[in-house]
Amino acid sequence: MNDLFLRACRNEPTERRPVWLMRQAGRYLPEYRAIRERVDFLTLCRTPELAAEVTLQPVRRLGVDAAIVFADILLPLDAMGAGLRFAAGDGPVFDRPVRTLADVAGLAEPDVERDLGYVFAAIREARRQLAAEPAERAVPLIGFGGTPWTLAAYLVEGGASKSYGHLLSWSWQDPRGLARLLSRLADVSARYLQGQVDAGAQAIQLFDTWGGLLDARRFRELALPALRVVVEALRSRPEGRVPLIYYLNNGAHLLPELRDLPVEVISVDWRLPLDEVRAIVGPAKVLQGNLDPTALLASPQRIEEATAELLRRGSGGGHVVNLGHGILPQTPPEHAQAFVSAVQRHALAPVG
Amino acid sequence: MNDLFLRACRNEPTERRPVWLMRQAGRYLPEYRAIRERVDFLTLCRTPELAAEVTLQPVRRLGVDAAIVFADILLPLDAMGAGLRFAAGDGPVFDRPVRTLADVAGLAEPDVERDLGYVFAAIREARRQLAAEPAERAVPLIGFGGTPWTLAAYLVEGGASKSYGHLLSWSWQDPRGLARLLSRLADVSARYLQGQVDAGAQAIQLFDTWGGLLDARRFRELALPALRVVVEALRSRPEGRVPLIYYLNNGAHLLPELRDLPVEVISVDWRLPLDEVRAIVGPAKVLQGNLDPTALLASPQRIEEATAELLRRGSGGGHVVNLGHGILPQTPPEHAQAFVSAVQRHALAPVG
Repeated sequence: MNDLFLRACRNEPTERRPVWLMRQAGRYLPEYRAIRERVDFLTLCRTPELAAEVTLQPVRRLGVDAAIVFADILLPLDAMGAGLRFAAGDGPVFDRPVRTLADVAGLAEPDVERDLGYVFAAIREARRQLAAEPAERAVPLIGFGGTPWTLAAYLVEGGASKSYGHLLSWSWQDPRGLARLLSRLADVSARYLQGQVDAGAQAIQLFDTWGGLLDARRFRELALPALRVVVEALRSRPEGRVPLIYYLNNGAHLLPELRDLPVEVISVDWRLPLDEVRAIVGPAKVLQGNLDPTALLASPQRIEEATAELLRRGSGGGHVVNLGHGILPQTPPEHAQAFVSAVQRHALAPVG
Repeated sequence: MNDLFLRACRNEPTERRPVWLMRQAGRYLPEYRAIRERVDFLTLCRTPELAAEVTLQPVRRLGVDAAIVFADILLPLDAMGAGLRFAAGDGPVFDRPVRTLADVAGLAEPDVERDLGYVFAAIREARRQLAAEPAERAVPLIGFGGTPWTLAAYLVEGGASKSYGHLLSWSWQDPRGLARLLSRLADVSARYLQGQVDAGAQAIQLFDTWGGLLDARRFRELALPALRVVVEALRSRPEGRVPLIYYLNNGAHLLPELRDLPVEVISVDWRLPLDEVRAIVGPAKVLQGNLDPTALLASPQRIEEATAELLRRGSGGGHVVNLGHGILPQTPPEHAQAFVSAVQRHALAPVG
């Protein structure tokens, strides 16, 4: 069993740093594209055998130190009745965006076992398959979800957006109405993510893609309370708890707010070097990240240089190596391999 | 004559802080939309009488303390032969994106008087009309352009993009080829912006919408050298120079790089409060900004509260009041007025 990732998340000493890639199961892999030729994206998410197969693809090909269940942060919103579709070009669309308190009241109260049980089944199946892998590849499985703020961003806009004008407009005009939506999203997320842990997820990553739209004061007022509800729910599990990873995109200006967030790992984009991030969030947090995903479009030699710099910048404390954002679909798989191998070759150097 | 804006840019004492709005001439104004019903966007840019009229609309309606010539940062790229169109929904498209050194060599060498003279004519006409306004509204006229990096972003992608994969891929694979493009864009920009000053622009703002994609090291290596070429060209004018404003979007992590940039004014988005920005860039820089443009979707009372907070945060040094990004098309004009009036009512409070 390879438990490097879990030990690193808990800030325990490890013989080398673990590495995995955000969106590691996906479009840059030909074996993933082969499956997508047969089934569409949502069908893939909802078919546990296929989702588990895709979950293991990067483990088998690249030898990463963690797997992350194949799913989408927007699935719980579909379970709340928002009508998720993926339009041409894979952009998400909600047929019924939520923009008023009446819309919030109209959202369904999902039964996570009934409505999202396919994710739990994929987790169970992926765990089963991982346990059958050779020891080095019997890696931990990560579950994940969006933060309430980021889920609200997509749900209010009805999909991705350039300026998130509907969301931000609502936040200024009726912050209490929006808070009601965030509170419902927090409750559903807490149950959904606990269900993932019950099914076998060994860590949970919360993706905050759009938290960085807010300045610090509004982040504290709007986004943090609902995020804390989710974090506290996961921390207070009587059955014992798993490491929590909070990923914040585009949030260099919000790092001081994260010092007191009770999660083990802070995952950041590539904009700020990890030594500077650590100076702000403090030595108690393990950091995850943060190679610029566009660096994987460079030559393998350049990737190795960038990786060496990343390892140097991250060496002052606990460090789970990753990208700063999802791997780009146009990345050659051998470049992803060059990154993973460069980290793993660093095996014998002492951490810290 | 109202020269508050120019004095504030030079960090001279003023009786109150000047205020204008990025994209103040545009879609949120019914008088602008009335003109756009008759002519398309590029025709408007290329018709000096209409461009001047639109330039003065926010001065006449809102009483802002500066005008900015109506134009688009992408116009010089069209003059270089890239084939600019505005597709449905107003997104820019280049028919001939530039992605190789051969593409760079194929770019035309524009004669700025011949190919962009319509912008200079709009500046002359706007200056003439501003001079004829009542004293309070006889405000300075700002010229502008994109930074070489931001121009390259659009030119390489062939328009706006989600991840700027072509640009960033090129930056890793062939940084010298991309540097050649940036150098050519810097040369054209320097001539174009000097032409704007010759025509009567009394300050120049450089828009760096996409500089924040880069971490500090890559910003220094890729974006700053070409930016400095433009800045130095404008600073070294034997005819005397105008204040320079550098606007950086999404660049909280890059602020330390801006301390030594020889511009009078640093303009920032809303993500970091101005007192924190000032602590990083130092007291010598005048700051411009930085109300969250989505705040103008709130009630006028809430706008006044947010403006009071902005004025408080900006009070530690020279401050040109503005938004942190362009005004949103859905902004009610009376809300823009509430912001401008709130700043101007603050007239008698001492600055600093």
